[in-house]
Amino acid sequence: MPRPVIAAVGASRLGRTALPGRDLFSVAVDEAFEGLPAPAELVGALYAGNQSERYENQIMHGTLLAEWAGLRYVPAERVEGCAAAGALALRHAVTDVRNGEHDAVLACGVEKMTAGGTDVATASLAAAFDRAIEQRSGVTAPSQYALLARRYLHETEATERDLARIAVKNHRNAARNPRAQFGETIDVDTVLESQPVAPPLKLFDCAPVTDGAAVVLVTSAETAAELGVPAVDLAGTGAAANNIAVAERDMTHIEGARIAAERAYAEAGVTAADIDIAEVHDAFTVSEALLSEAAGFAPVGTGYQSHRPPAERDDGWTDVALSTSGGLKARGHPVGATGLLQAVEAYEQLTGVAGERPGDPPEGAPSSPETALLLNEGGVADAVTVAHVLTAAPEVGR
Amino acid sequence: MPRPVIAAVGASRLGRTALPGRDLFSVAVDEAFEGLPAPAELVGALYAGNQSERYENQIMHGTLLAEWAGLRYVPAERVEGCAAAGALALRHAVTDVRNGEHDAVLACGVEKMTAGGTDVATASLAAAFDRAIEQRSGVTAPSQYALLARRYLHETEATERDLARIAVKNHRNAARNPRAQFGETIDVDTVLESQPVAPPLKLFDCAPVTDGAAVVLVTSAETAAELGVPAVDLAGTGAAANNIAVAERDMTHIEGARIAAERAYAEAGVTAADIDIAEVHDAFTVSEALLSEAAGFAPVGTGYQSHRPPAERDDGWTDVALSTSGGLKARGHPVGATGLLQAVEAYEQLTGVAGERPGDPPEGAPSSPETALLLNEGGVADAVTVAHVLTAAPEVGR
Repeated sequence: MPRPVIAAVGASRLGRTALPGRDLFSVAVDEAFEGLPAPAELVGALYAGNQSERYENQIMHGTLLAEWAGLRYVPAERVEGCAAAGALALRHAVTDVRNGEHDAVLACGVEKMTAGGTDVATASLAAAFDRAIEQRSGVTAPSQYALLARRYLHETEATERDLARIAVKNHRNAARNPRAQFGETIDVDTVLESQPVAPPLKLFDCAPVTDGAAVVLVTSAETAAELGVPAVDLAGTGAAANNIAVAERDMTHIEGARIAAERAYAEAGVTAADIDIAEVHDAFTVSEALLSEAAGFAPVGTGYQSHRPPAERDDGWTDVALSTSGGLKARGHPVGATGLLQAVEAYEQLTGVAGERPGDPPEGAPSSPETALLLNEGGVADAVTVAHVLTAAPEVGR
Repeated sequence: MPRPVIAAVGASRLGRTALPGRDLFSVAVDEAFEGLPAPAELVGALYAGNQSERYENQIMHGTLLAEWAGLRYVPAERVEGCAAAGALALRHAVTDVRNGEHDAVLACGVEKMTAGGTDVATASLAAAFDRAIEQRSGVTAPSQYALLARRYLHETEATERDLARIAVKNHRNAARNPRAQFGETIDVDTVLESQPVAPPLKLFDCAPVTDGAAVVLVTSAETAAELGVPAVDLAGTGAAANNIAVAERDMTHIEGARIAAERAYAEAGVTAADIDIAEVHDAFTVSEALLSEAAGFAPVGTGYQSHRPPAERDDGWTDVALSTSGGLKARGHPVGATGLLQAVEAYEQLTGVAGERPGDPPEGAPSSPETALLLNEGGVADAVTVAHVLTAAPEVGR
């Protein structure tokens, strides 16, 4: 059974841009293949994560991105699970390589969210909710997550100030990440005094609207060694869909994410305690708290301490560093590309490339992390969750 | 390596209906699982083919359909390649089972095309075209296929009357298919005198707008035998994406379809001459002509003879019977479900279930077909093509 690794990554700059999605994708491909043979000489299949056809009136991203990567006659398709689309693409690359279907697969994600304005983005994301019992009530993503936040603040000792500290920490990490949408640090008052969106969530509790693209080249370890590139093992993958409507789920115990993470841990032969860094799906600050618990990093009710250095967290917490990239909150959240941006961050941290970033290492991050967890979600919380465990593979490649 | 088979199929009635997509899907699931254990006792993963979020303002069909099939915490996702979405879902089911990822996978497709009216369907399908060099010209699906038809009539001896005969044949087949949208036969004049849509294509050269859903349960042969159901081998699968814009391709030699078919033949260890029945993607009458050539059934320039009984075709043609279901043209074309409806037809023909249909066997069809080819396309012609070869497996199951 071939051993799937990440052999190369690339991403566009994140934020508002004049470039259409296909050109954002070209930027990402160019970065990933710098110094490598052309994509057509390596890649056997392509998966494209994309959330919505509304932004650019475009479907068929499998075919479109394959053409723009210089590929022809390869199997290529779009996969979609709202914001989990990127990790779904990565997951197919992992299973195709480990099952010998292809020796190299390109996992791609792109979203051009600013193309239609904020109203289009809001309406487009609402299409992820149950049409009958949610959409007809006029709910939006922030209002759905506000229900989770309200309940979380009721059930735990967490305060709005604690959630704000998660945003502060993620902006601090983003300020060190040259790919990030936001480059400036903020303080707790910035969050608490920002515009209410859906109480208790304020503007700075929410991930932004972002244009961006990312690609991850997955190959067998053998091929990565031949290419002489730094490689990271894709040691485990897991996925789980929960019911689509929030009303049909437990709002503060994200069971689908727990199950997806457990599946990835089991495949990789690790436990939550082994994870050094994690990118969790912090679409809203409360998400990072909830997912820290679902991933097994934090005892129930203490996930909001994710912003603290390990020594200052409650007993039972692991030493994991969360959202070293700045997370969805501050790195940016181009929906269909987000799952792959998580993988880009983990690749750069585990290969040491991230160590060349200016400034100090991100808050709480070990100097040489060896194991990473990625949790990418679609819909509100765990309507679908895709988990990956990545481990350093210094003996592969250069 | 487990041997993937189709163990059960189901489909809704096709045509215009008051039911929303999720209820059309429920009808299909109920049919497929009649007499079987509940889906949750068998199914390890779900793939959902769906073309457009516009019809029902709904994305996340993986999660939605999993919930409506009674599944929870399984991996579930939407796959999309415009009208090839259904076969992309089937393809993942095949590879997941043969690679041991899951023992049973549910491939699903649904489209509620009448929800927004014909203008919405027309605009929605145009999103499959290249935004820059096609959409800005205002082209529609019929106008794109009219280019192919015009060129085909120029390059070959085919006439508009020949294309009309393909529609006549497919309506005749549909009249025997209880699932079909159209139950009445037509004659050549019906086609030739019908409303011009995009010359040389007239209304009866075009597949209709259809609501519908279909599901295909793929399991290992071992599990199908334990269930005691009639089974059909999924002997080969192939896929290929061509460039997205028609202007960047050869309009009358559908190379992507040829390659996809060759890949499926190679996996199955068969050639075009072995195929007894084929469902090709006859979105327009000219498509059946072009795909008959791409599949290797017909010498170049003679594909338009697909409506003739085998003895009356030119030398070099095989004995294949095309579109025994009535095809997209007359069975109906609920976009994201079409690839699975092709599989439903092949399953019923190869297991003998179709033999219980009222009336004579479809034109040119052998009384006991053993091998079938399915060609499902997305975008104009081969922007993406997915091919499957199915073979009878009378020794499996009952």
